[in-house]
Amino acid sequence: MGHVVLRLGAIVEQLGGELLGDAQLEIESLAPLESADIRALSFLSSAKYRSQLTTTRAACVVVAPALRDEALARGACIVTPDPYVYFARLTQLWQRARKAALPAGPRIHPSAVVDALAEVDSSAVIGPLCVVERGAKIGAHTWLKSRVTVGEDCVIGARCILHSGVVIGADGFGFAPVRAEDGTCWEKIEQLGAVRIGDDVEIGANTCIDRGALADTVIEDGVKLDNLIQIAHNVRVGRNTAMAACVGVAGSAVIGANCTIGGGAGIAGHLTLADNVHVSAFSLVSRSLHKPGHYTGVFPLDDNASWEKNAATLKQLAGLRERLRALEKARGPESSDPTNDKN
Amino acid sequence: MGHVVLRLGAIVEQLGGELLGDAQLEIESLAPLESADIRALSFLSSAKYRSQLTTTRAACVVVAPALRDEALARGACIVTPDPYVYFARLTQLWQRARKAALPAGPRIHPSAVVDALAEVDSSAVIGPLCVVERGAKIGAHTWLKSRVTVGEDCVIGARCILHSGVVIGADGFGFAPVRAEDGTCWEKIEQLGAVRIGDDVEIGANTCIDRGALADTVIEDGVKLDNLIQIAHNVRVGRNTAMAACVGVAGSAVIGANCTIGGGAGIAGHLTLADNVHVSAFSLVSRSLHKPGHYTGVFPLDDNASWEKNAATLKQLAGLRERLRALEKARGPESSDPTNDKN
Amino acid sequence: MGHVVLRLGAIVEQLGGELLGDAQLEIESLAPLESADIRALSFLSSAKYRSQLTTTRAACVVVAPALRDEALARGACIVTPDPYVYFARLTQLWQRARKAALPAGPRIHPSAVVDALAEVDSSAVIGPLCVVERGAKIGAHTWLKSRVTVGEDCVIGARCILHSGVVIGADGFGFAPVRAEDGTCWEKIEQLGAVRIGDDVEIGANTCIDRGALADTVIEDGVKLDNLIQIAHNVRVGRNTAMAACVGVAGSAVIGANCTIGGGAGIAGHLTLADNVHVSAFSLVSRSLHKPGHYTGVFPLDDNASWEKNAATLKQLAGLRERLRALEKARGPESSDPTNDKN
Repeated sequence: MGHVVLRLGAIVEQLGGELLGDAQLEIESLAPLESADIRALSFLSSAKYRSQLTTTRAACVVVAPALRDEALARGACIVTPDPYVYFARLTQLWQRARKAALPAGPRIHPSAVVDALAEVDSSAVIGPLCVVERGAKIGAHTWLKSRVTVGEDCVIGARCILHSGVVIGADGFGFAPVRAEDGTCWEKIEQLGAVRIGDDVEIGANTCIDRGALADTVIEDGVKLDNLIQIAHNVRVGRNTAMAACVGVAGSAVIGANCTIGGGAGIAGHLTLADNVHVSAFSLVSRSLHKPGHYTGVFPLDDNASWEKNAATLKQLAGLRERLRALEKARGPESSDPTNDKN
Repeated sequence: MGHVVLRLGAIVEQLGGELLGDAQLEIESLAPLESADIRALSFLSSAKYRSQLTTTRAACVVVAPALRDEALARGACIVTPDPYVYFARLTQLWQRARKAALPAGPRIHPSAVVDALAEVDSSAVIGPLCVVERGAKIGAHTWLKSRVTVGEDCVIGARCILHSGVVIGADGFGFAPVRAEDGTCWEKIEQLGAVRIGDDVEIGANTCIDRGALADTVIEDGVKLDNLIQIAHNVRVGRNTAMAACVGVAGSAVIGANCTIGGGAGIAGHLTLADNVHVSAFSLVSRSLHKPGHYTGVFPLDDNASWEKNAATLKQLAGLRERLRALEKARGPESSDPTNDKN
Repeated sequence: MGHVVLRLGAIVEQLGGELLGDAQLEIESLAPLESADIRALSFLSSAKYRSQLTTTRAACVVVAPALRDEALARGACIVTPDPYVYFARLTQLWQRARKAALPAGPRIHPSAVVDALAEVDSSAVIGPLCVVERGAKIGAHTWLKSRVTVGEDCVIGARCILHSGVVIGADGFGFAPVRAEDGTCWEKIEQLGAVRIGDDVEIGANTCIDRGALADTVIEDGVKLDNLIQIAHNVRVGRNTAMAACVGVAGSAVIGANCTIGGGAGIAGHLTLADNVHVSAFSLVSRSLHKPGHYTGVFPLDDNASWEKNAATLKQLAGLRERLRALEKARGPESSDPTNDKN
């Protein structure tokens, strides 16, 4: 894409911050401290990386007020309360500058299949080979990248980004078991609800959000979903919650606001997670979590031989506890210990 | 979509059941007991929710014979042996009524790419932007939603539903290692088999079923697969087995009939699962399961600090067992306990 | 697809190997030893299956030199140093023969959306309904199957295969937290890097590889990725590494060459894996692995009732260790054991 060159003066004019250094200096790239070259703008997001300040070759560094003097000692800097947020806005500025030099694509790509009864805001962009079905609504400035499906009656808010391969509004997985002599078969429960997605939601590639069975599946404002995530029918995901890739959320789970769910984690069905719950990667949440906090359930990695020994013993763990208790009992009351379990 | 209004009399005329109440009563929605309004039809699938009978505002409730009097005491009801199956059929009735008011789409959407040598039954529906390759067969009343790929020579039975983004017949993951001085590289094993899918199979969004290496990958009648599932080459999934989202089944696994596989679970390659095996979510099946039953292998969730302590100790578990055994031995034969392990 | 018949003589002429038997014998299929019929060519990849040599009905068997006499005693054979690699090349020969009888499709399918500023090698094949964006490059003999997206400025090398639904170059998952009184919201970090994929890479259906934040995400030569894999931004995957389905690799992880990652495994962000690291299925790698080896972290499967008991005890494991230590201490120094932990 287009090569971008911006002067430091133009940058602070657009993004704010206090520039200490030559406003005419030309910046040609954004880079981390350790790989920045002498035309690059870099940033220091945490004081723990401050040692890199003395070694970086960056033309200018974005820092917090506490590091002003240290940064200034090595060259130009921009001082701002939150350098990481400033950096995010820098990337947006860069992206806009790159795109400005290029011709805009069509608003609705001619290869997209948009039903005549869908409502697409005049500022939304529908990329190549997308499908927008009857009754769907796409809000202002929302962008469907390419090969996205938005199913019947599903609603997407404003300023959303849906990456390639996203499927909104496939049928939730609902079947009633029909018992018969030769085994159970399944009667389909038609999924009569839809999906409602708020504003400022970003949804990663090949992620799926199913339509509700009777009511709607709901994704609130500001939610960020990474790639290959499954959101089942009737789930509600609260405002500004973020999920890393490969998470699965089962049906009717209700997840609070400002949660973070690590990659590959799972949320069982019909649970409630409070606001500000943080789930580690690869952990299965199998009960409701009513208190904010950080929760984990992962088998620790080990070399395979050690793992085999420990995993084999794990299958006898309840028995080991019984044996320990028997030994304690045999030793008599003097061995009693406040950490003993009671049951 | 179209708003549906149906009289109770018309409902039992179509679905059966014994109506106790006013056949002229108009129903405008289906809803769970707790959120039903006075125009809604609801159902009681299990006696454990019977207390909701007294509080629901539903116009009519579908119940089993045992709850007839209780239901009748509060208003209209439909009595039927299996209310949950009846409810499933109600959703189908609702869906048909909603769709009846709308113009039907084309049978094969003009944006779909269907090879001239594919065989598509005249009652099948191929949605927008689907790909049906040479030699593929699509059975009667089967519906490919949108952006579905059915690869060369793959066969889909009758009355199947394939949701958006499904990929049937990508190459199985097969490579022969070629050892060389500078490391192993991989020689592709062309996948010469196909995929055969029976009747009444439903496949969720972005799920993948790979073609077999020499023989075919087989999905039997009535199987239900949720979203984002991986079925590897040469797998066989038995009749009426259901899998929740994000399951992975490795190559050549043979899964019996009437199994249920929880979300995010995995089945290792070359295993056999008997009929009526039930695997919990997030569990890895790493050996064959020859007996019906319910199997689990999940690290229990805990607050992160507790998890850290327990997980660290887990890596010493085999050692703890040795120490326990040493203590038992030191205590002498009087400590022997029938639950002691022998090895 | 076309039925293939090849004489044994023609096979060794093309693939090498020493034929012991009638060069005029016609072969109609490739098959495993146990299901081979009398027109099939089979192979023996490992001496442990040698007993099948006496029972197979195969017309001819590919064997290693050590099994020459044994194979010859039952009929025709082809002797070659690595029968499994020979078999892989046989499947390729078969595929070429099948395809030769069929008309070739167009090089760039008319339904694909290829930007005028993308560079597609004249020998590459772009399948139906693919999207190749501005600035993307597709190398010689590379094949995008169907419904593949290659995003802006992403580069795919030579002889690659990208299966249906693959998404290359969606935005990496990057957001800066913006703290406010009513909770944290997220500022998007535009992803200014791209994806660079080497030669001879195969990528399975619906797999996603995100573009880098500032620098590029890199997949080196010969890497093989199965279906439904997530490769996050700024990851580097080394030469000839293979990953089974449903793996997730978090941002900025650096994976060495000749690694194998089992299905459903995860690699946490910002880690380094040495060359020749092998990770078991379903294991989470949460720390760097600097030594080659085989690593595992999976909760062993059990019947659900046993699992419940052991899993409940697991949450007290650190406490059990304390109690064991207390007993050991109470017994005094004579109980000391070299396997005791020290902390």
